[in-house]
Amino acid sequence: MEGPVNDLKTIEKLSRLIRYYILVSTTSAGSGHPTSSFSSVELMSTLFFGGFFKFDPAKPDHINNDRLIFSKGHASPLLYSLWAAAGMVDESQLLTLRDFNSDLEGHPTPRFKYAEASTGSLGQGLSIGFGMALSAKYIDKLPYRTYVLLGDSEMAEGSQWEALQLTSYYKLGNLTAILDVNRLGQRGETMLGRDTSVYEERIKSFGWKTIIVNGHNIEEITKAYDIAFENSDVPTMIIADTVKGKGVSFIEDIDGWHGKSLSGDQRDKALIELGKIDKGIVGKLAVPVNIKKAGQGPGPGNRDKNKDRPYKIGDLESTREAYGKALRDIYEDFPDIVVLDAEVSNSTYAKIFGDNYPERFFEMFIAEQNMVGAALGLSLRGKIPFISTFAAFFSRAFDQIRMSQYSNTNIKFSGSHCGVSIGPDGASQMGLEDIAMFRTLINCSVFYPCDAVSTKALVRLSASLKGNSYIRTTRMDTPIVYDNKESFKIGGSKILKEDSRDIITVCAAGITLHESLKAYGELLKENIHIKIIDIYCIKPIDEKTVRDASLKSKALITVEDHFPEGGLGEAICSIEGTACPVHILAVRKMPRSGSPEELMSYESISKEAIIKKVMEVINT
Amino acid sequence: MEGPVNDLKTIEKLSRLIRYYILVSTTSAGSGHPTSSFSSVELMSTLFFGGFFKFDPAKPDHINNDRLIFSKGHASPLLYSLWAAAGMVDESQLLTLRDFNSDLEGHPTPRFKYAEASTGSLGQGLSIGFGMALSAKYIDKLPYRTYVLLGDSEMAEGSQWEALQLTSYYKLGNLTAILDVNRLGQRGETMLGRDTSVYEERIKSFGWKTIIVNGHNIEEITKAYDIAFENSDVPTMIIADTVKGKGVSFIEDIDGWHGKSLSGDQRDKALIELGKIDKGIVGKLAVPVNIKKAGQGPGPGNRDKNKDRPYKIGDLESTREAYGKALRDIYEDFPDIVVLDAEVSNSTYAKIFGDNYPERFFEMFIAEQNMVGAALGLSLRGKIPFISTFAAFFSRAFDQIRMSQYSNTNIKFSGSHCGVSIGPDGASQMGLEDIAMFRTLINCSVFYPCDAVSTKALVRLSASLKGNSYIRTTRMDTPIVYDNKESFKIGGSKILKEDSRDIITVCAAGITLHESLKAYGELLKENIHIKIIDIYCIKPIDEKTVRDASLKSKALITVEDHFPEGGLGEAICSIEGTACPVHILAVRKMPRSGSPEELMSYESISKEAIIKKVMEVINT
Repeated sequence: MEGPVNDLKTIEKLSRLIRYYILVSTTSAGSGHPTSSFSSVELMSTLFFGGFFKFDPAKPDHINNDRLIFSKGHASPLLYSLWAAAGMVDESQLLTLRDFNSDLEGHPTPRFKYAEASTGSLGQGLSIGFGMALSAKYIDKLPYRTYVLLGDSEMAEGSQWEALQLTSYYKLGNLTAILDVNRLGQRGETMLGRDTSVYEERIKSFGWKTIIVNGHNIEEITKAYDIAFENSDVPTMIIADTVKGKGVSFIEDIDGWHGKSLSGDQRDKALIELGKIDKGIVGKLAVPVNIKKAGQGPGPGNRDKNKDRPYKIGDLESTREAYGKALRDIYEDFPDIVVLDAEVSNSTYAKIFGDNYPERFFEMFIAEQNMVGAALGLSLRGKIPFISTFAAFFSRAFDQIRMSQYSNTNIKFSGSHCGVSIGPDGASQMGLEDIAMFRTLINCSVFYPCDAVSTKALVRLSASLKGNSYIRTTRMDTPIVYDNKESFKIGGSKILKEDSRDIITVCAAGITLHESLKAYGELLKENIHIKIIDIYCIKPIDEKTVRDASLKSKALITVEDHFPEGGLGEAICSIEGTACPVHILAVRKMPRSGSPEELMSYESISKEAIIKKVMEVINT
Repeated sequence: MEGPVNDLKTIEKLSRLIRYYILVSTTSAGSGHPTSSFSSVELMSTLFFGGFFKFDPAKPDHINNDRLIFSKGHASPLLYSLWAAAGMVDESQLLTLRDFNSDLEGHPTPRFKYAEASTGSLGQGLSIGFGMALSAKYIDKLPYRTYVLLGDSEMAEGSQWEALQLTSYYKLGNLTAILDVNRLGQRGETMLGRDTSVYEERIKSFGWKTIIVNGHNIEEITKAYDIAFENSDVPTMIIADTVKGKGVSFIEDIDGWHGKSLSGDQRDKALIELGKIDKGIVGKLAVPVNIKKAGQGPGPGNRDKNKDRPYKIGDLESTREAYGKALRDIYEDFPDIVVLDAEVSNSTYAKIFGDNYPERFFEMFIAEQNMVGAALGLSLRGKIPFISTFAAFFSRAFDQIRMSQYSNTNIKFSGSHCGVSIGPDGASQMGLEDIAMFRTLINCSVFYPCDAVSTKALVRLSASLKGNSYIRTTRMDTPIVYDNKESFKIGGSKILKEDSRDIITVCAAGITLHESLKAYGELLKENIHIKIIDIYCIKPIDEKTVRDASLKSKALITVEDHFPEGGLGEAICSIEGTACPVHILAVRKMPRSGSPEELMSYESISKEAIIKKVMEVINT
């Protein structure tokens, strides 16, 4: 091992110091997870101070630093205490644990500068680590290693097995996971209890190297890290037999001590058991190497001859196909782009990018949870991940999507096959709640383009924005309505039809924009004028344009191929200061198979439904 | 094997007939998945017509019928064709495949009376089967068997491994799964390709018996079902080496043929290859036994002495604790109740039920996706599953939740620890998008009680309603505001404070109802009167009461411990015909650790924020 190393005796002392920090900080907070922290102390202190973990604490973003993710996020007191033992956090700061103004939150968040990502919803850390290891090996071509600390309870989450299979599939020997088998979950024994051999059998069958160790024996742990380090193509799982609450006899291996801090008296009793603490000791970390990352972006030779071919108004192209082409076309300008897809790239058209730039396209198979976690990991290593599947199937990863916002990430989601307009495949394949889902994210832009030109512009805009965004694409071909030079912005909208005689305003997006334009044409024949606004950006929504339109309209009619709850209509309803009633046309009946036209008609989001609603408003 | 059996030659003929039906129906539809159907033909025809599958077609709901779930729902043409071969669907009906008015949808739904559940979002069928097998073995104590047809691509979904582990944990030897390893996914080869030995190793390590067969050899398949049948405590996975498109040479094992029907010409060419079809043949099914299910409900001896103890106004109890007690108390009246929890029953208080009725409580460990699938299976076998975890973690199973609505199910969800008011644990544990998520479901009631009395009433109401419902509960203790005799109804609300001098109406629910009452008290001191409505039912919402209140108010102020999108505020905004502006107070800043009070204040959903907004409205 390179770098400064602390000897075994020192690591033992540091472990004792870390237990002290965990104790005093959790008792001070009055809550937290000391017992889950105690079981992992030696596993982490040996990693940190045994010369394995290479990290420059002065430069947490150093590209050659190893990465460490606490998937068992409730062991956050251990994470903070490790860095205290490394001299980077002082005891007074530890005593602010879980306070409103403290960066040491109940579960790790990036407010703590050494936390890689927000964790605490279990079963997500391995996917994040997978994304980082993928970035290191295939994109940046850097030798740093990624470590993930896992709890045993969280191995019940399916997402873990998604991550395990993809990690071995992509031969990520640069990833080492440490499984803390402390036997006890929140409300009793885990499914497998102390049976490390079953964990081993399962994890091994998923293509990993496994090593079972006594998780409190520093020598054994050291050997395990040595072995893990040697693996170049096979990820290693260190399966550690541990004791929950280890180090304090009256909480060791006892049920009922999850998520509970010790009282002041109990803490004092525990401190006596811990023995003499050397607060003067500072654990040394090994230093990272200094290697530049590989050059990014496309090589000059492989650009598609159709790249940036302009669109013609009236031509037909699905927005999903425009999405795939746009990725191909903008990559030159955004060399950090990486594209992931969940085994449907010929439907989402991410394939167009993949065919042109296979070195930047990663097949994630039908494992959406891991795909989102991977994107989070890639994003935290400076990449711009564009990830796609059917809009409906992002619901599979809502927990990972929700959590990503707490890590200040930069993930570009694209969901295809939205709404009933996909037709014959039926309800299971229809994204009807995706706008609602992505709108709940703080700071996530939600785009819903109606044609290829706006799609391309919004893909480019997404790439340029820092933060999560969602692009909703449509299965069927739709006509180009915009000129290639039209510009689109975050929080923008476009008034497509406007006249001083407008009596009603229709707000639509995507497929229903075209239905609205058809309705416009029909109504015009009757000399009825309506304003049409393309709400291509649903979040943040263009409040001013909608508000202004409401001043001169008898009503706003919103039309969307989505359930009413949380969708375009409710977004418009919630704008303060609108001056007229809002009527929401949305998918309200149980969807089913059929042709796109039949289904849009059945759900009253078609041209006819818009005309009917307009006439109703006029006649009241 | 009991019952009538078709000989091997007949099963071969039936298989050919089934292929014919698949071909003509998909070509007629112009879309669908013939190749994915072909690979499973012998696996299913042997199950059906080899005397294994015991089913009375005249009584699809017969409690002794075996159950069959097509987890690979895209093989629906095979499902319909199987029943055609059994004489229960005629060819003209098959030719309506995927039509708007046809019950033969693109993916199976219960509109087809022999489909157990809606499938098509992959990786969900095994969990549904798990729920059914659990019901058979532990609750109804019936000998029927559950079969699940799985695709190989969908084995990448983590949810599969959740279901696999729980099935063996609960020793469900009455479940047999059939894995169709046809090598090809939608856009190319699967992660494991044709490597059945890796599938075997993985599935075996999860506690299953495995049998590898040639999936087109009826004799081999017969032997495998015989072995599976003998297993009493260990579930069996039949891993079948198959050929996608089997039976038609020019589509066999060829990439690019997923989800594509043959043209008329191609169909005709294929029919020549299939050879002579005997349309006169009808496959016979074995008949089920006739055994009564075990008696349901609690025994008389084990009722809790605190059962139905009345609450006193002003007393403190968290709604989550009231939820657990209510389950215990109502079980006598709803003997079909089954309670599941995802390893947090001491937090959701489902534990109270489990401690009283352990035979009706099933630990699902930290595997929320499988828990929802299991509930779906239980519900389809006539149970009333109440399932609980932290509100935040239901996001993990949004896809399963979404899909459940397409199976006309009866699942009672309860999410605890909602909102920032959980305090120090931080954002990862806060349910802030659960109302938005559950509101998107067609026909799902969304309840959000503010005290123990209303919680108890709403739990009872949920049990009595047919259909999905969601109950949102709060971590901290809240005072009882209702009399024990108060009644609550679906679509209802309660006006808690009202006066002719009311100038503003505050709509709140759960924790914010108490903040509103505090604001009411403070404002009253200043002689400012506000109306307070407890929106305990957020979906369907009490439009009339809100509309009436709006007529006499300068504004409606909504307050919720939830993100603004898709929540209480938007639900109120979307009510047509309200007569005053609506102001939404909701969680808008990045949440974090802190005390409940600090966080509610930080997010402007506290008493002070309500008072401030009231004063703003008054002063404008």
